[in-house]
Amino acid sequence: MNQMSVSTANEAIMANAIRALTMDAVQAANSGHPGMPMGMADVAAVLFNRFMQIDPSAPKWPDRDRFVLSAGHGSMLIYAMNHMLGYADMGMDQIRNFRQMGYRTAGHPEYGHADGIETTTGPLGQGITTAVGMALAERMHNARFGDDLVDHFTYVIAGDGCLMEGISHEAIDMAGHWGLGRLIVLWDDNEITIDGSTALSTSTDQAARFAASGWHVLAVDGHNTQEVADAIEEARKDPRPTLIACKTVIGYGAPNKQGTSATHGAPLGDEEIAATRAALGWNHPPFELPEEAYSAWRAVAARGKAARNAWEGRLAAASDRDAFNASLAAPDAKALRDAINGYKARLSSDAPKVATRKASEMALEVVNATLPNTIGGSADLTGSNNTRTKGMEPVSRDNYGGNYIHYGIREHGMAAAMNGIALHGGFLPYGGTFLVFTDYCRPAIRLSALMEVPVAHVMTHDSIGLGEDGPTHQPVEHIASLRAMPNLNVIRPCDAVETAEAWEVAATADKTPSILALSRQGLPTLRDAHTDANMVARGAYVLREVSGERDVTLIATGSEVELAVVAAGLLAAEGIKAAVISAPCFELFAAQSDNYRATVLGTAPRVGVEAAVRQGWCEILGENSAFVGMSSFGASAPINDLYTHFGITADAVAKAAKALL
Amino acid sequence: MNQMSVSTANEAIMANAIRALTMDAVQAANSGHPGMPMGMADVAAVLFNRFMQIDPSAPKWPDRDRFVLSAGHGSMLIYAMNHMLGYADMGMDQIRNFRQMGYRTAGHPEYGHADGIETTTGPLGQGITTAVGMALAERMHNARFGDDLVDHFTYVIAGDGCLMEGISHEAIDMAGHWGLGRLIVLWDDNEITIDGSTALSTSTDQAARFAASGWHVLAVDGHNTQEVADAIEEARKDPRPTLIACKTVIGYGAPNKQGTSATHGAPLGDEEIAATRAALGWNHPPFELPEEAYSAWRAVAARGKAARNAWEGRLAAASDRDAFNASLAAPDAKALRDAINGYKARLSSDAPKVATRKASEMALEVVNATLPNTIGGSADLTGSNNTRTKGMEPVSRDNYGGNYIHYGIREHGMAAAMNGIALHGGFLPYGGTFLVFTDYCRPAIRLSALMEVPVAHVMTHDSIGLGEDGPTHQPVEHIASLRAMPNLNVIRPCDAVETAEAWEVAATADKTPSILALSRQGLPTLRDAHTDANMVARGAYVLREVSGERDVTLIATGSEVELAVVAAGLLAAEGIKAAVISAPCFELFAAQSDNYRATVLGTAPRVGVEAAVRQGWCEILGENSAFVGMSSFGASAPINDLYTHFGITADAVAKAAKALL
Repeated sequence: MNQMSVSTANEAIMANAIRALTMDAVQAANSGHPGMPMGMADVAAVLFNRFMQIDPSAPKWPDRDRFVLSAGHGSMLIYAMNHMLGYADMGMDQIRNFRQMGYRTAGHPEYGHADGIETTTGPLGQGITTAVGMALAERMHNARFGDDLVDHFTYVIAGDGCLMEGISHEAIDMAGHWGLGRLIVLWDDNEITIDGSTALSTSTDQAARFAASGWHVLAVDGHNTQEVADAIEEARKDPRPTLIACKTVIGYGAPNKQGTSATHGAPLGDEEIAATRAALGWNHPPFELPEEAYSAWRAVAARGKAARNAWEGRLAAASDRDAFNASLAAPDAKALRDAINGYKARLSSDAPKVATRKASEMALEVVNATLPNTIGGSADLTGSNNTRTKGMEPVSRDNYGGNYIHYGIREHGMAAAMNGIALHGGFLPYGGTFLVFTDYCRPAIRLSALMEVPVAHVMTHDSIGLGEDGPTHQPVEHIASLRAMPNLNVIRPCDAVETAEAWEVAATADKTPSILALSRQGLPTLRDAHTDANMVARGAYVLREVSGERDVTLIATGSEVELAVVAAGLLAAEGIKAAVISAPCFELFAAQSDNYRATVLGTAPRVGVEAAVRQGWCEILGENSAFVGMSSFGASAPINDLYTHFGITADAVAKAAKALL
Repeated sequence: MNQMSVSTANEAIMANAIRALTMDAVQAANSGHPGMPMGMADVAAVLFNRFMQIDPSAPKWPDRDRFVLSAGHGSMLIYAMNHMLGYADMGMDQIRNFRQMGYRTAGHPEYGHADGIETTTGPLGQGITTAVGMALAERMHNARFGDDLVDHFTYVIAGDGCLMEGISHEAIDMAGHWGLGRLIVLWDDNEITIDGSTALSTSTDQAARFAASGWHVLAVDGHNTQEVADAIEEARKDPRPTLIACKTVIGYGAPNKQGTSATHGAPLGDEEIAATRAALGWNHPPFELPEEAYSAWRAVAARGKAARNAWEGRLAAASDRDAFNASLAAPDAKALRDAINGYKARLSSDAPKVATRKASEMALEVVNATLPNTIGGSADLTGSNNTRTKGMEPVSRDNYGGNYIHYGIREHGMAAAMNGIALHGGFLPYGGTFLVFTDYCRPAIRLSALMEVPVAHVMTHDSIGLGEDGPTHQPVEHIASLRAMPNLNVIRPCDAVETAEAWEVAATADKTPSILALSRQGLPTLRDAHTDANMVARGAYVLREVSGERDVTLIATGSEVELAVVAAGLLAAEGIKAAVISAPCFELFAAQSDNYRATVLGTAPRVGVEAAVRQGWCEILGENSAFVGMSSFGASAPINDLYTHFGITADAVAKAAKALL
């Protein structure tokens, strides 16, 4: 898009309409953040009026430009624009009912609630990092399908908070390293945070900081539309990602409050709103807009629609049309099931003793050979996470056609970038680190769960079983803390067969991200893999049944299933009939029928076994039960010493079972 | 210390002794990280030989220089040095048994396991950020007690991983903003990470990046001892924090493996160790050192001891000696108890209806007036977290005498810096953000729990009760996920009285950090405060007992205790006797006697009420029970609509109770 070809006559009205809707909606809700939308209204008006290519009648058009409001508290900016752009689900009733139950206009923009919201933002720094993932996905998709089909920009509005959060460093470093020239960040440089002046808490020269990571940096008066437009134009031409520092006045237009933190997160009040109307020369009642505002914004939509129509023509003529569409569709679950079942049949004869992290690599060989658009990666633990399968090539600025990402020692950035890659479409991202470092990326994992984005996290070294690295590296509470999160499948397979099934679940999940908790240590194949049924998908199942009535039921996950099996043998030698339940995924088990659950769990006393804290085992164990696991942080020692020291042994399981009888 | 006054003749031996102990210990353990200690051995030898002021015979000497090994995987560096320096608990048996059960030489340096370890490191980026807290504490302590008593440096060895982690941005920004000229970071610039060359994942010009945040930056050959010494000398004179980029060869000395990631995290192997011995001209058997090595390192200790003796003389003569000693001692629990009890008596007559975040501010007025060395702060939510009490002054580079820290939008940095402030000694730090953002600082919270450092986290807006900000800001799983962590008190008070008691618990905790989960919304005073007993310290207690036998027991925390009390009234109107248990801290309740717990919980069916997920309620609720709470993410709406929508109401509690009977 060339800015010269569009009318700029009504940009002031376009911007003031944002301001009016913002202050009125925040006032009606009696809560919200007017400062940012009012301050950045001019920048947003220019960006959309002269550059953005979107089609509100086809919100998911693959080649649309992406707009990410990283400063998500300014949600009224996006709602006001999307209303005026004509998104069908953003009528004025939505604006009037900002932040009310049942409306799409949540306090912060929520992906999936309304069209034109590319990602959920609000937790600061997530948006800019997710956008890095989107911008990388654009280049990766372009490398596969060419300029005719994939040729768009990713624009971000970020605030001081986004740039103060640590994750922004990871985002900036990644974007600079990958040379994401189509990523343009418009920084709302208003020098105000909630506590007051930014001078209270930061002295960083952001321009120099971004430049240090290979960014192109520009600075403009954020209320001078031509300066803004020229900068965006220049940014689009530069091969580097660009930061445009937009010097703005927070709450611009509110004569008595602008430029202060008073406008950040509270309604302006009726008096100040009236004064703002006067100052802006805005003579329209609340929630009523002049036709010029609508027509100017609708012109943006019309331009986008024309661009989309042209693109649809190119797609129709493209020789790789089917592959392109397939890349954006759900993965081929049938093909994957067949491939995994074939692999399971081979496992059945091999019965390997391997760590589940190694089993994950073996399963990924199958997954990656079957699904053409997986994108692997690791936060600098490739050889430990076993995430890179044969033939995978690193993604770099010189090779966007690669399919493996060296995310660096940036777990948080990796998780947020994976969200962005998945949201962009075209790819199925997975990435690895140690399970203990889920703590580093938890905010991004939470967003994937909240947004229902099915990314896969390969989290190895999943217990004290990692051994000598000690308590800082030994997850103890992490499995429980992740199980606590809604809409997240925490899968802890016990052997190579379950690991293959776990990958089938994770790679074909529709709306749920997955954590694969995988062992460092070798584990025997316990499952008879002759059946095609995916037992991991049931969450828990009977691995070893007894003949006749059970005396006790042993329930374990991951590396501790082996202990339960050995314990069952010890008990059998004493005439005690112990069934063994493998429970790789509590969430999937909870989703089974009551009847299935009751059949699996039985009525005998139960012993749970997991090298982690007990929290979360309640619903499965019930009253007459015992738990063998951890109740403290771990220690640094060889694995066998640790299991013995912490009393997680087959003997301890057998003893706990006998104590119940 | 002036480097000219010490002998530098044996620095090569000092360094090679580190290398030898490292490669031999890692080989003996058959695991560990030889690359970093061998690469940075020269830098460490120069730093300690010419500058460090420590006294191994008095490891906690308050005015010692602090040394933080942020690249904690290189733990053998610190163990080797501390052995040779003569720390009494670091005999050669510890080195020989590196990473073995029951020894102090854990895989990563663990605070409290051995003297001379200032903080636990290993999770990357934590060390450098904790060190920022230490360096700030040094200046704050100096502002109170002067150069005679407080005048030391904080040195950090950091690796590429530390500088890639997002938290490093927060650390750098804070240190530059606060002008921490006594913080000197020695960056092991070896261009290698686990996956290979740093060129795989980063292009950031670290020198430019640090300079952008106001740092003084130098670069040296890390194997040229005079260059290293000159740089440290210059850094000590500069008023800014300094980064010294030390260009090193990872695994220096191992002729066939040095300079490659092969030396990073695996033993060198017998053959390469022999080759290294030859290359270094090191003719001593494993775990045997020449006398020159010991004598050189012991000279460092002797110099430190002399310095400490001089300091002890100054302390003895100091007019503010008692105040200085008191600042480093445990807080005056008796004084605080008396003050809190006086405050509770006043509350008893006022019975205010206030949000517990406001009640926290009211309690903090008492705490801060009683304990002279509290340091408040917030991650840019001061007005929301209510963390700044009357008369508190911001800490800045111009006012280290202040006692309130504007941490900026840097939750992770805040939590790690608080660890550093607490570890340094002299202060009791607390800091605030929203409860949902515990996700951003979880790795640092975990370290406080693991290290047993009793910092206090003021986490407000603790449920859907925050209302319109919506699901990104509404904690649902956070209380459970924090309760899952060992050695962390998660306290969720129900009213102003409990909030006061919660602060007494948090401020006097010896080895356990606290999370105070506080409401945004107003809550009535439910507790009769006439008693001096601190009921929060019991974890849970009977708030409303019935006459005669209970029909049902309602158990709630925080804002939901009010609902339970109302529900009990509804049930009473139907002739059902419902006791109400307030359970502000599950961890403290679990520590009570079985008898106390049984008395509180009773034998009637139980209903739990908490606007959060159920996970973690198991042990308290038992089998015949119900739970009223959340099972999904929240929504954006006014508070009352949310509680109704999610079915967390007094009616729902009463209904759940009746269903049990």
